[in-house]
This record gives sequence, C-alpha cells and structure tokens, in this order.
Amino acid sequence: MTEIKIPKTVLERLPVYLHYLRSLPKDERTNVSSAKIARALGLGEVQVRKDLALVCGKGRPKTGYSYEELKKHLEFRLGCSNNTVAVIVGAGRLGRALLSYEHFSEYGLDIPAAFDLSATKKEELSNGKAVFPMDELESFAKENDVKIGIICVPEKAAQQVADEFIKCGVKAIWNFAPGRISVPEGIRIKNENMAASLAVLSAGL
Amino acid sequence: MTEIKIPKTVLERLPVYLHYLRSLPKDERTNVSSAKIARALGLGEVQVRKDLALVCGKGRPKTGYSYEELKKHLEFRLGCSNNTVAVIVGAGRLGRALLSYEHFSEYGLDIPAAFDLSATKKEELSNGKAVFPMDELESFAKENDVKIGIICVPEKAAQQVADEFIKCGVKAIWNFAPGRISVPEGIRIKNENMAASLAVLSAGL
Repeated sequence: MTEIKIPKTVLERLPVYLHYLRSLPKDERTNVSSAKIARALGLGEVQVRKDLALVCGKGRPKTGYSYEELKKHLEFRLGCSNNTVAVIVGAGRLGRALLSYEHFSEYGLDIPAAFDLSATKKEELSNGKAVFPMDELESFAKENDVKIGIICVPEKAAQQVADEFIKCGVKAIWNFAPGRISVPEGIRIKNENMAASLAVLSAGL
Repeated sequence: MTEIKIPKTVLERLPVYLHYLRSLPKDERTNVSSAKIARALGLGEVQVRKDLALVCGKGRPKTGYSYEELKKHLEFRLGCSNNTVAVIVGAGRLGRALLSYEHFSEYGLDIPAAFDLSATKKEELSNGKAVFPMDELESFAKENDVKIGIICVPEKAAQQVADEFIKCGVKAIWNFAPGRISVPEGIRIKNENMAASLAVLSAGL
C-alpha cells in the first residue's frame, strides 16, 4: 500500500468515501469514478480526485477505480483492520452512550470498557461490555494494549484523567469535557465540545 | 456590534476563546491580550489576533481587549443570549445523553424535548425535559419556534427525519446518523459521525 502522508483535512473526508462505497448496492461494486463519488456526496470532483489519488493513486481513465481496491486502500488508511482498543473514563450518560454505540467496529475500533470513580465493582452490560472501578484502569489498559483514552468526565476532572491515561500508555485522547487539556508532545488530542459544535451551527440563524 | 462576516474556520474557534474567558479567575477579568490567550490555548498569536479583530476590532496596544467587551462580542457572535430552541428525534442512548447534557445553555441553546417513534405518550424526565411521541413533533416545533433539529436515529431513518424537520420549519440539522442526508438549499447541516471521528484520530497510531 502507498505510504504518502495524508493531510488531516483529507483524512477527515476518508470515512465519508468509505461509508459511501460500503453503502453501494452489490451490483454497483465493480468500478467507481471520482465523478460518481463527487456527485453522490455533493463534493467537488477535483477535490475527490485529489483526495483519492493520495490514497489509491490515479484511477483509470473512464472507468475510475476498482471498487475493491479503493475500498481496501481506504480501510488500510483508516486502520479498519487494526482492532485499535479504546476505553472511556466517565460512565455517565454520554460515556455509556459511546460505550453502546455500534458503529465503531466498522472502523476497526473496539471500546470494551468504561471506568468510573463511583463504580465499586465490575458491572457487566448486556452487550458484553463492562463498567469498572477507576482503580482497574491501569492494569486493564496494559493487558489490553489500550491505544486511545476517551474522556467523558466533567471539566474539573478532565486533566487528571488525561494524566492517568498517559501514565497507562495511551497514544491519543478523545476529550468530551469542555476546556483545554495539556498533553505531552507526541500524544494526539481531539477535543469534542458538543455545546460549542451546536453553537457554531446555530450562530446567526 | 460589528457585522463583518466571519469565516467558518474562525467561527469554530470562537467557543474556545469564550470558554477561556469564562474560566479566568475573577481577578484577571480586566484586560486580556491576544498574546495571553494564544499562550493559554496553545494557539499562534497571529491567528488569535486576526480572529479577535474580526469579532471585536483591534485590541489596544499593550493592554489588549477589555475583558467584558471581548466576552460580550464573542457571546453576541455565538448567539449566547438568543435562546435558540433545538429538539432531538431518536431517544436512544445518544439522544438521551444529548438531552441531559448540561452545557448547551452556556451558548444560549435550549433542548427541551426529544421525540421517538416508540414513545406512545409523553415521558417527563427528572431534569424538566420530556420525550414525546413522534406525531407531536410538528405542533411542538411550531409552538416553540424550534430552529434546529438533531437526528439521533439509525441511518436508514435519517433522511425521513430530516424531511420531517424541514416540514416543521427548522433552519439547521445536526445529524448523528452515519451517511449523507439531502437538504434543500439554505438549510444548514452538520454531520457528526462519531465512529468516523474516532477513526481519524486513531489512523496510523
């Protein structure tokens, strides 16, 4: 597979392309052109062509890409066959909603557990997942090679949870607490402030 | 207040600035400079200066902006005193988590209700909110001047819910279902694919 570095803005569109390919009816899974994808997704054709060229090289004139090949390259870039393990700290409503959310596995992501300060013993959920007491985080993370930590605690506890995650060896943090968190160089962080997202959508309505 | 149009990428940073200002201790709420904000948030000073100039004009040399004035302009741009009403369709775990999420009000957003196909009568929640049967959406939306519709149903039902929202007069849709939704010209849409976000964060870890 090609190893060209993909800019973040392009990377963010790859799940959209992959989702589109996966949603195509069986009889359309032969060849697929940038033009067709652009039309279906309401994107510019030039942008789609450039994005896909980074992922899968140039398509063939007229026919475009082989469906299977393009899908395989997108899945590779998004790590869909990696089985990356993530865990959640904070088993309130949002933490539990993410724990039950079904679509992560489509991208090779596994969220088997959440941890909560108020949990005193392991609570098994009906979907095979579990909520553990906070003091089991470190051993769980090491045994299960946890790569991503998801923060679903209130803002005032978020930095402490981030520090804990980093001690456990996570490489990336997905933060749902409002406000800024400091992490050491080399640790990825994505802040997901739901209220701010909705505020931006509604600004000037 | 100034009415310069603010680009979307800048708009997306405004909640970060506002959150920072609101989190400052009382004794620092006099003047605040771009340099100080940039340092605290780990952003480039030039970027912060340009962003804030769009919102609040130029700061004064040395002292920067008046805390109150900058906060007021940011709140104005983000519509924090507008009381914009949003409702959710789909009262599963994610829908209920959003319904209970406390931070929306900080941005003038009110999510009083969710609607669900499986609800047969109004269910009052402890926080003063409620889940209603789906067939009450239209009258509720009209009575409460609902501006934003939030889609928390499975993908196959998402387009139908979007169409319903538009019939009810919403101006913007926040879509948590995977996949693409078509909306008429002039209706804002923001797709929030949680699995795709996490996939992008984890790509290449």
